[in-house]
Amino acid sequence: MLTDLYQLTMMNGYYTTGRSDKRVVFDLFYRGKGNSYAIACGLEQAVEYIMNLHFTAEDINYLRRVGLFSEQFLQYLQTLRFTGDVYAVPEGTVIFPNEPIMTVVGGLAECQLIESALLCIIGHQTLIATKASHIVREAEGKKVCEMGLRRAQGVSGALYGSRAAYIGGVDSTSNVQAGEMFDIPVQGTMAHSWIMGFDSEYEAFEKYAEIYPKHCVLLVDTYNTLASGIPNAIKVFEKLRSEGHEPFAIRLDSGDIAYLSKQARQMLDNAGFPEVKIIASGDIDEDAIRRLNSQGAKIDLYGIGSKLITSENCPSLGAVYKLAAIEQNGELVPKLKKSDTVAKVTNPGFKKIVRFIDKDSSMAVADLIALHGENFEHVGEVEIFDQSDVWKRMTLKEFYTAELMVQIIDNGKVIYDFPSCGEIRDYAYYSQSSIPSECLRDETTYPYKVDLTKDLYDLKMRLITEEK
Amino acid sequence: MLTDLYQLTMMNGYYTTGRSDKRVVFDLFYRGKGNSYAIACGLEQAVEYIMNLHFTAEDINYLRRVGLFSEQFLQYLQTLRFTGDVYAVPEGTVIFPNEPIMTVVGGLAECQLIESALLCIIGHQTLIATKASHIVREAEGKKVCEMGLRRAQGVSGALYGSRAAYIGGVDSTSNVQAGEMFDIPVQGTMAHSWIMGFDSEYEAFEKYAEIYPKHCVLLVDTYNTLASGIPNAIKVFEKLRSEGHEPFAIRLDSGDIAYLSKQARQMLDNAGFPEVKIIASGDIDEDAIRRLNSQGAKIDLYGIGSKLITSENCPSLGAVYKLAAIEQNGELVPKLKKSDTVAKVTNPGFKKIVRFIDKDSSMAVADLIALHGENFEHVGEVEIFDQSDVWKRMTLKEFYTAELMVQIIDNGKVIYDFPSCGEIRDYAYYSQSSIPSECLRDETTYPYKVDLTKDLYDLKMRLITEEK
Repeated sequence: MLTDLYQLTMMNGYYTTGRSDKRVVFDLFYRGKGNSYAIACGLEQAVEYIMNLHFTAEDINYLRRVGLFSEQFLQYLQTLRFTGDVYAVPEGTVIFPNEPIMTVVGGLAECQLIESALLCIIGHQTLIATKASHIVREAEGKKVCEMGLRRAQGVSGALYGSRAAYIGGVDSTSNVQAGEMFDIPVQGTMAHSWIMGFDSEYEAFEKYAEIYPKHCVLLVDTYNTLASGIPNAIKVFEKLRSEGHEPFAIRLDSGDIAYLSKQARQMLDNAGFPEVKIIASGDIDEDAIRRLNSQGAKIDLYGIGSKLITSENCPSLGAVYKLAAIEQNGELVPKLKKSDTVAKVTNPGFKKIVRFIDKDSSMAVADLIALHGENFEHVGEVEIFDQSDVWKRMTLKEFYTAELMVQIIDNGKVIYDFPSCGEIRDYAYYSQSSIPSECLRDETTYPYKVDLTKDLYDLKMRLITEEK
Repeated sequence: MLTDLYQLTMMNGYYTTGRSDKRVVFDLFYRGKGNSYAIACGLEQAVEYIMNLHFTAEDINYLRRVGLFSEQFLQYLQTLRFTGDVYAVPEGTVIFPNEPIMTVVGGLAECQLIESALLCIIGHQTLIATKASHIVREAEGKKVCEMGLRRAQGVSGALYGSRAAYIGGVDSTSNVQAGEMFDIPVQGTMAHSWIMGFDSEYEAFEKYAEIYPKHCVLLVDTYNTLASGIPNAIKVFEKLRSEGHEPFAIRLDSGDIAYLSKQARQMLDNAGFPEVKIIASGDIDEDAIRRLNSQGAKIDLYGIGSKLITSENCPSLGAVYKLAAIEQNGELVPKLKKSDTVAKVTNPGFKKIVRFIDKDSSMAVADLIALHGENFEHVGEVEIFDQSDVWKRMTLKEFYTAELMVQIIDNGKVIYDFPSCGEIRDYAYYSQSSIPSECLRDETTYPYKVDLTKDLYDLKMRLITEEK
């Protein structure tokens, strides 16, 4: 039932006109507004949704009350299961605008029904994984902890947001349930309320150190960071050391983080604690990290809340799901949707993505969106061209190719082994490493080349001319 | 388990130091960045979460593996249930920054544990209800349909986002599951893929009209809105009328909506269909509606997607949950958290909100945040003052008062009857109508007065001076 009503009104229409089982191809992709690249994410949950697709008796009763559907159609829904094929790029793959993240092949009705939920699940997780990758890249090896549960847009926004952030590269989460469900390292220490629950800041620190001598992180900004927080922390750290334990860190959560971190570093170093880490949290994202770095901040670990878990600067990926082919007279006929600009016209047909990798550097140089039957394995040279400015051409030599999409569901059966989140995270790291770093910036002055093969381009141009 | 790890490390600390059952008061409120008012929302789901609070054997095993907790504490968690009290403003109430949306009274450990989930659930729904209220106000009586499922941040972002949008004032949703769960009217017609699935646009329209003669809405922008979409729609509408049915609407989803809607209106009027409505969708929010209105657009119904379901311009409410009092030597002692600016210092003590309503106009004139024991029912005049600029004073006369917070949970038992979403939506409409419209604008040139009572102000000042 997690669908838009118009999917059901259309399905009812397909059913009534005998078109429900017409074979179709739908592509799920994003158009790039706000994200020049993305880390594909959410496939496992999308497939869970597809495999669990069904209507309960209560659902059918509810739909009957809506009053738009024929009784035969409601009967048909009662036994409906997904029986088609799904192809997708594995989670963690770096993908670019207009590249299919997922391609669904099957009956028109079943493929139409699942559009809304697929866009929701994959759009959300891909968005957050991508935001995480920006933050982690800017952190330049410093550890990053996701701690946005309280600011997430609902419970699944928090849980699957944590999953996606981990896949995108963060090191840990504060979200215990996400930690348990997805085997993500969990991290967390104390809030201001811990400090306020004791008669003094010193007593609050002391008690905490007694309970967690091996994981002692003290939040130093409740009253006055430099005048009381850090001095009290140092006193407790000295006591801890005299008992044979090394303290771990302090945390700054407010104020001028760059200034405070530099002062804190000096105070800790002078007191003989050069190994104690400084954690910063509070309204941090990749832009804030860039500013902190340029101000010479001394931060060892970032805690990132609302700006990551909501992808604050761009809170939706804007993914779309478009018809690419439909059966006519027993044959699968490519289709496209026109638009005022060539770049927004959808790519027709049953397609795949081929990534060209330079043999010397092992770096990706370009992707071609190709028709499913095309093959570049035994081709020596390929001339690629920009689909908007066709005079921009480049010849690829000495490459090997990787096909990015794999089949996940075959005739309604899952044929794919889902990797663990940790494995996906490693793969996402590898996938990002293989793309020139210039192409992974926010600004797209040097966009990664994603072109169409000559065959696909010609098909597209022919359909643009033909379509009424 | 839907909590941040630090809640559990603190709870373990409270348990170890024998403080778990110390009675405390926590306030949940928001600080106002991005939203000068808010429509309280999410209480029912927050209470469901509280009442369902428990740890399974697997949860305990997982926490044991995390390696931070004592075995006695893990035993204690196994039987933990919420046993405290909850007070809250009913859903749909207009509230302002720093006013408690919810106050939780109970043992320190249980109150601390629930912080993260409460902020997530209430923060999310309050955010979306508030965004909806802005959009609906700008639509000035035109109908608004929420259709953001595909762009939501996860499944609960979509479902509870639809609920919140309905409470905030939208008229319907495209989300079938939300419609079923919360009894929200559902709406939806066709996508571009319907049109593309037929040999021609005309045939696609004709078939749709045959199946839905009483709910005929045609999407006219698939190929060329003015040259083919509207003329084809008019032909089908004429056929429909000849068969005794009146068509309902056309939908515009791309292009220059203001221009196209004016042209469409004229074409429909000239063809004898002045009653046919024009629906607009695609990247719309309150700003877009304002622009469309100023351009003289002829739109009867708005379909709102990503910008509502993610509250795009401000994707998190920034709600906080702060300790306001703690038991010391058997007494509940007010507490506050200091900050550099007076306005950011939290308000201490067990509080309530009193709304002052002018007897003549029945309009709200000011709110006072008061200590729980204070009473204004039999007071003739009250002088209020701004808590930052105390020289700004005003005397209230001829008022009656409404206490905004009600008790929801008493000693772990729910004592509140939750209204239906429709009832909450009506109450939200009433609550907004009772606030001067100047105070419900985006820009806060005339902010609604939310002051502290003299007693609360004096307590706060005393604690600011005393706190170390």
